Amino acid sequence: MDERAALRMLSGALSHAGDDAAVVEDLLVTTDMLHETTDFPEGTTRYTAGWRAVGASLSDVAAMGGAATAAVAVYAAPAFEDEQLRKFVAGASEVCEAVDGAYVGGDLDTHEEFTVATTVVGRAADPVYRSGARPGEAVCVTGSLGRSAAALELFHDGEYTRANDLFRFEPRVGAGRALASHASSMMDSSDGLARSLHQLAEASDCGFAIESGVVPVAGALREVVEDPFERGVFFGEDFELVFTLPKTAVSTVEGSSPTPITVIGEVTEGGVEMDGNALADRGYTHG
Amino acid sequence: MDERAALRMLSGALSHAGDDAAVVEDLLVTTDMLHETTDFPEGTTRYTAGWRAVGASLSDVAAMGGAATAAVAVYAAPAFEDEQLRKFVAGASEVCEAVDGAYVGGDLDTHEEFTVATTVVGRAADPVYRSGARPGEAVCVTGSLGRSAAALELFHDGEYTRANDLFRFEPRVGAGRALASHASSMMDSSDGLARSLHQLAEASDCGFAIESGVVPVAGALREVVEDPFERGVFFGEDFELVFTLPKTAVSTVEGSSPTPITVIGEVTEGGVEMDGNALADRGYTHG
Repeated sequence: MDERAALRMLSGALSHAGDDAAVVEDLLVTTDMLHETTDFPEGTTRYTAGWRAVGASLSDVAAMGGAATAAVAVYAAPAFEDEQLRKFVAGASEVCEAVDGAYVGGDLDTHEEFTVATTVVGRAADPVYRSGARPGEAVCVTGSLGRSAAALELFHDGEYTRANDLFRFEPRVGAGRALASHASSMMDSSDGLARSLHQLAEASDCGFAIESGVVPVAGALREVVEDPFERGVFFGEDFELVFTLPKTAVSTVEGSSPTPITVIGEVTEGGVEMDGNALADRGYTHG
Repeated sequence: MDERAALRMLSGALSHAGDDAAVVEDLLVTTDMLHETTDFPEGTTRYTAGWRAVGASLSDVAAMGGAATAAVAVYAAPAFEDEQLRKFVAGASEVCEAVDGAYVGGDLDTHEEFTVATTVVGRAADPVYRSGARPGEAVCVTGSLGRSAAALELFHDGEYTRANDLFRFEPRVGAGRALASHASSMMDSSDGLARSLHQLAEASDCGFAIESGVVPVAGALREVVEDPFERGVFFGEDFELVFTLPKTAVSTVEGSSPTPITVIGEVTEGGVEMDGNALADRGYTHG
């Protein structure tokens, strides 16, 4: 069974399976697990690990247009070293503060491999799903793509300080809140822009016409790799929002979102295309 | 750093650190991680694992007197086998249904060792903490102690069917709700009765006088080990509620709790004693 099929089974009870967070009454609940071999390259500080792990779950709440209420984490490691744990808690707490949420504690587990499980609870009176995009609307992204791809390149090169800085992203909770009453569909870009577009298209039964020239690629990525566009579009592990909304609402959200947004194309009847050619449903399957 | 000290640090931001669940606005949030080598003996079915892992978090919400709103789980394993995952989801869903909660989905992670991280969100208008016991009150437990100790013995002996049955406990959410407006302090017995009493005594700045003759030990434990009382009091891994309340309220809660309760002693000014002798602050540190 591949991971997507297994995920569908695991979330079988979800009324809106496949969305970034589960919706229960007025609450959003989302959980993730990250671990050393696949998610924290050599050189990742525990501060960055705490920030990024909790941030990934905060991003799921942002992607539904919710406010971040509370975050918890399980810290699993072979031993519990005072300094490491302190830094982890600092990172987890600070990413919550950055989005007006609260880190409220967690649990410990003895584990051979450093592993973190995070859960965020949010609130949304009117959550945004993946399924509401309509032909003729604009499709947009927040910020720019490729920070994580750039960070991974820098970790590989041993440039740990810069890599850690790039790895600590700000979850787009503020933007998500500003978009909540306007966006017709939304998700985060953690699987890459291309795969996100395909998932929105499938959930909304629509297509997209993207213009490559306006897709915002992170400056940091342009500096460190020779194929920034390829990585920006396909790599993922980023936590920007990908969303659709009526064209008439674009200027309103441009004014109210704390993060810049870019219109990258239009919703169509079917087919995910970039500059008129089919855009591959391709990304990286992360462990 | 030992586990208790590390836990205090991990939950540093908690206003009531040390309680079974974090309190955020009107919500309770709790998270746990269980894994194969320490929590799921050979012979544990995935159905039991799903039930027990989610049940452990539901118990934390019960211990604060809350209603169980939603549960999520991360399922981490070397591979995602259809049948195994299906059973896990069934166990997770059914333990939620047993306490009027909802299992709403989760995440997957590739991991060498089978590991489960669970989070439960509950609601409590007036949560019960560990810190409110007052001298003269009654101290009680729900159900009986030692089911898990009996299960572990049976797993060891290869009696897997009976062991799995005992390992799937019913979280005491209903009892916790019935107790919420009467109990002055409460926690679950997952660290064992003795250690739970010491933790309540420390948080409440009180003592306890316990009568050994009335401590309810599970019949199943009496059948399978030669020292049932020792294991019932010290072993833990059970999920009964240990709580205090005014003696005048005992008959009321006996009438309203769906689970039988037993008065095992009285709250005193200081010192945790059983039959007049100091009760050791001893249990098992679980990984």
